[in-house]
Amino acid sequence: CTVWTRTQSHKAAARLDLAGIYPPIATPFTAKEDVDFQKLEENLQKYAKIPFKGLVVQGSNGEYPYLTEEEQVEVVRAVRRSLPADKLLMAGSGCESTRATVRLTENLVVTPCFYKAKMGSCALIQHYTKVADSSPVPVVLYSVPANTGMEVPTDAVVQLAQHPNIVGLKDSGGDITRIGLIVHKTKMQDFQVLAGSAGFLMAAYCVGAVGGVCALANVLGGELCELERLCVSGRWEEARVLQQRLIEPNTTVTRKLGVPALKQAMEWFGFHGGACRSPMQPLTEAETQQLRQDFSSNGWL
Amino acid sequence: CTVWTRTQSHKAAARLDLAGIYPPIATPFTAKEDVDFQKLEENLQKYAKIPFKGLVVQGSNGEYPYLTEEEQVEVVRAVRRSLPADKLLMAGSGCESTRATVRLTENLVVTPCFYKAKMGSCALIQHYTKVADSSPVPVVLYSVPANTGMEVPTDAVVQLAQHPNIVGLKDSGGDITRIGLIVHKTKMQDFQVLAGSAGFLMAAYCVGAVGGVCALANVLGGELCELERLCVSGRWEEARVLQQRLIEPNTTVTRKLGVPALKQAMEWFGFHGGACRSPMQPLTEAETQQLRQDFSSNGWL
Amino acid sequence: CTVWTRTQSHKAAARLDLAGIYPPIATPFTAKEDVDFQKLEENLQKYAKIPFKGLVVQGSNGEYPYLTEEEQVEVVRAVRRSLPADKLLMAGSGCESTRATVRLTENLVVTPCFYKAKMGSCALIQHYTKVADSSPVPVVLYSVPANTGMEVPTDAVVQLAQHPNIVGLKDSGGDITRIGLIVHKTKMQDFQVLAGSAGFLMAAYCVGAVGGVCALANVLGGELCELERLCVSGRWEEARVLQQRLIEPNTTVTRKLGVPALKQAMEWFGFHGGACRSPMQPLTEAETQQLRQDFSSNGWL
Amino acid sequence: CTVWTRTQSHKAAARLDLAGIYPPIATPFTAKEDVDFQKLEENLQKYAKIPFKGLVVQGSNGEYPYLTEEEQVEVVRAVRRSLPADKLLMAGSGCESTRATVRLTENLVVTPCFYKAKMGSCALIQHYTKVADSSPVPVVLYSVPANTGMEVPTDAVVQLAQHPNIVGLKDSGGDITRIGLIVHKTKMQDFQVLAGSAGFLMAAYCVGAVGGVCALANVLGGELCELERLCVSGRWEEARVLQQRLIEPNTTVTRKLGVPALKQAMEWFGFHGGACRSPMQPLTEAETQQLRQDFSSNGWL
Repeated sequence: CTVWTRTQSHKAAARLDLAGIYPPIATPFTAKEDVDFQKLEENLQKYAKIPFKGLVVQGSNGEYPYLTEEEQVEVVRAVRRSLPADKLLMAGSGCESTRATVRLTENLVVTPCFYKAKMGSCALIQHYTKVADSSPVPVVLYSVPANTGMEVPTDAVVQLAQHPNIVGLKDSGGDITRIGLIVHKTKMQDFQVLAGSAGFLMAAYCVGAVGGVCALANVLGGELCELERLCVSGRWEEARVLQQRLIEPNTTVTRKLGVPALKQAMEWFGFHGGACRSPMQPLTEAETQQLRQDFSSNGWL
Repeated sequence: CTVWTRTQSHKAAARLDLAGIYPPIATPFTAKEDVDFQKLEENLQKYAKIPFKGLVVQGSNGEYPYLTEEEQVEVVRAVRRSLPADKLLMAGSGCESTRATVRLTENLVVTPCFYKAKMGSCALIQHYTKVADSSPVPVVLYSVPANTGMEVPTDAVVQLAQHPNIVGLKDSGGDITRIGLIVHKTKMQDFQVLAGSAGFLMAAYCVGAVGGVCALANVLGGELCELERLCVSGRWEEARVLQQRLIEPNTTVTRKLGVPALKQAMEWFGFHGGACRSPMQPLTEAETQQLRQDFSSNGWL
Repeated sequence: CTVWTRTQSHKAAARLDLAGIYPPIATPFTAKEDVDFQKLEENLQKYAKIPFKGLVVQGSNGEYPYLTEEEQVEVVRAVRRSLPADKLLMAGSGCESTRATVRLTENLVVTPCFYKAKMGSCALIQHYTKVADSSPVPVVLYSVPANTGMEVPTDAVVQLAQHPNIVGLKDSGGDITRIGLIVHKTKMQDFQVLAGSAGFLMAAYCVGAVGGVCALANVLGGELCELERLCVSGRWEEARVLQQRLIEPNTTVTRKLGVPALKQAMEWFGFHGGACRSPMQPLTEAETQQLRQDFSSNGWL
Repeated sequence: CTVWTRTQSHKAAARLDLAGIYPPIATPFTAKEDVDFQKLEENLQKYAKIPFKGLVVQGSNGEYPYLTEEEQVEVVRAVRRSLPADKLLMAGSGCESTRATVRLTENLVVTPCFYKAKMGSCALIQHYTKVADSSPVPVVLYSVPANTGMEVPTDAVVQLAQHPNIVGLKDSGGDITRIGLIVHKTKMQDFQVLAGSAGFLMAAYCVGAVGGVCALANVLGGELCELERLCVSGRWEEARVLQQRLIEPNTTVTRKLGVPALKQAMEWFGFHGGACRSPMQPLTEAETQQLRQDFSSNGWL
């Protein structure tokens, strides 16, 4: 399939520096499962004191598939309102059809995935090109195979990196060989890769990523910013010690127990997490203990 | 997890006979990718002459994830308007959150699947129970792992079969052992299983299914109704010959080439198929030839 | 890749009728994990009274990968010695390299699978063709994806079916659409398909298989021969009732709990099962209860 | 399950330093597919001039499943004979049964995998413990999921690391989060992790691995030793540039095209590769060109 190309200069002009750590923020709900904007606001005030590069709203950890369109708009608006001027906001979006995705104006665009067997490089290149052509804001590709059941193929990423309005990739798959290769193959394009999970954040920095969107940053945000600082200043020995202590807590709030665990851990660390929307189930007693153990055995609780 | 149970009598009273063949109808688009209601209407008139039990609208083959909510409502309304009085209409639905799914009033309810790792038996039982409790129409479970990346687990199906407002399962996975087991374990509940694809339709009848929702019925509807007749009347030898000739055409319009191939084949057989919505790609020349070959080598073209 | 073809007449001449039920026999061990030939002999005498078509020795259920070459030879010899004259013996074999496989003279040839990513149609066609060319006995292809992690692709089976010394396929994958298609595409070759598991035996007969190699036949051999009789005589209603009661016991001694469960169930039904060789672990207490439950809830215990 | 434990002192005493780069050497064959010991010897003389820590013989890249037992012994003997005194030799082994594995005296022990669904932590811990108990040489665990279809679970590795005769793990899966976690959880045991592929070698060093067993070292051995030097001396910027240029050549000789490609590339770089044993197929013309492209586009040809 054919793909659009332009001169490099456009992107250089529009350069948006993504480097740093972002929590993909959770959405607190009331007991009746409505969005709790008061608690959201309190979380945001606490996050404002952590040296994040910015926030991600409407990512997987925000339970965006469980929000109505109106709620999604309201949540983005609320976050934007309280965001410090020096912070970036990335808002997740992504519909199955290209035309619906084009209508949105958000910038972290997840892959269409329902017809996953048909979403090869050609379809994704066409999809993201149209979205980026029409988007008023720079677009970040978003590959999250644990949820979508598919990756943006490496060759599609490399080709899309040439688009002046596509500035980066959030890669949650964690294949470090692929991340290294994408950095290598896009080095002429000022394309920026963000690690999509804290478990491989240090390794991602090592092979050339510039930051991370990490669920665990909702809980241990300061620590992840510290890990960033150690990596970018070349203090790898210290970084390794810190990274290793973060793996188990991260795995437990992502792959192992997911959003309900993330929200429970947030409560322990002074944030509002609360329940998830149905059909997402609350943790069992045994899961809660496992969660606590994964934090305490690494010295965080 | 706990689940609702009622006396058997409720369901017996409300008995809805699902037995028969249903095409999950495709959605024709204009050259500009808008829904083409005129062509849809013409297809429906042709389908009215085939001895289908009814129609499925907003299934995977209808590209429902690519339609807006308004379009989905309009398409269902158009189909209902032209439906002969003696035919059933099953309308696909299914949102990620339980609360949004409850608000819909359609009856073929696909699994929530974005957080697939968390959608175990317990979550699905709770989800479907709430949906069925509040639904004014009988609910059919819809398991389509090729798209959703997950099945409704057998134990969840068996438990949900006890709900008086859950009358059946459309199973597109094609695991015939599982289908036989589900029929066996729900035999006290008057629960009806529909095969989700023409490739295993005869085998599904053999182990106790009562019908099929088959993409291929958009193209070879009369032939699938004939296969049904042979199976239910015990003419298995003739059924086998017909079934075998349908496997390759079916695989090519489902697993192998998908909706664009289904729509192309519809054109060859006198229906309106047309293009898909982006990002679904049109067939390549080679794919079109393969498609034609899979029909012609089995004597259909 | 190219493949050998000959005239049909050769195979017709050599026609070997595979139709019927075969237990893939288990290998009893002593407490010290040595082969217990005495107990094996006692099992064989009991099997001789069941209307099996024959026996399979050195299949997955015989723990063949755990036997030394010498033990494999001895076990085959022991079985052959006690085999009634009217029964067939299929002996499993299959090495990773073509040259080693050629040297064996057994007939149920499992796929080489260590380099599974490289074992495409071309490699398998070449491999099986060389094996069949040199084999003094007819060859049966053996596809067991749960253990090998790969299938013999359908197109490879269809091409290999033309070889005069390849007479059939034992398919343990259970994809009934594929089984129907293979029967269809090989109908000019007098190629015989055997179901590799009791869970889909009736459905396999329905779409054209001629028999089954079923682990469960080690335990409920008479019942499986009865199921065969009902299927081949067209008594499908009775067959369905019997088939359904066999699914759970079968799943538990294959996919769910495997060989240790098969051997435990054999003990309950008057055969010698005993322990497995390390590293295969014995059942836990909970597993044993689950196993018993799966037999008793279907009326077998 | 229970597992053996001893005091830490034993292992400290027996400490074997595994740190460094190892080529898992290929096995050259003659035109008749016999082992070509002359060519093997010539390769070994060239490898002797590269600062490898040692060699691995009978790994996946040596086509060990295609060698007879006698050939395996002869190849190991030949390599040992020509090995410089200051180099380590790791010889692959691993049978399906524990008793057969115990009888071998080699040290790089691949997982038993035929009954993969049954090879959980408990079975593997028991298996490796018995092997290590009786082995006269230190044992290295060997996890190669692309071939075996299964990993040694992390918890099993952590527990086995306490065994005084188990000194390390070769991990070919490439999950960098897992590698970091294993290093973290075994830090009290002087347990050494080797990356099983060049694609993630730098990232593995970054999170605490001590070396690598890399197919690509058969071709670009000096370059991989240089990458090692850059990593262990903390010159990460230079390491990154070199690492990135190695990813595509590595992927093509491993995951993408496998052993036939490795052997072809060896020819281009002055080593003897030659053909593989059947059923492994030679490269097609298109594959050979892709292979060449993956080396030349990164500046190696």
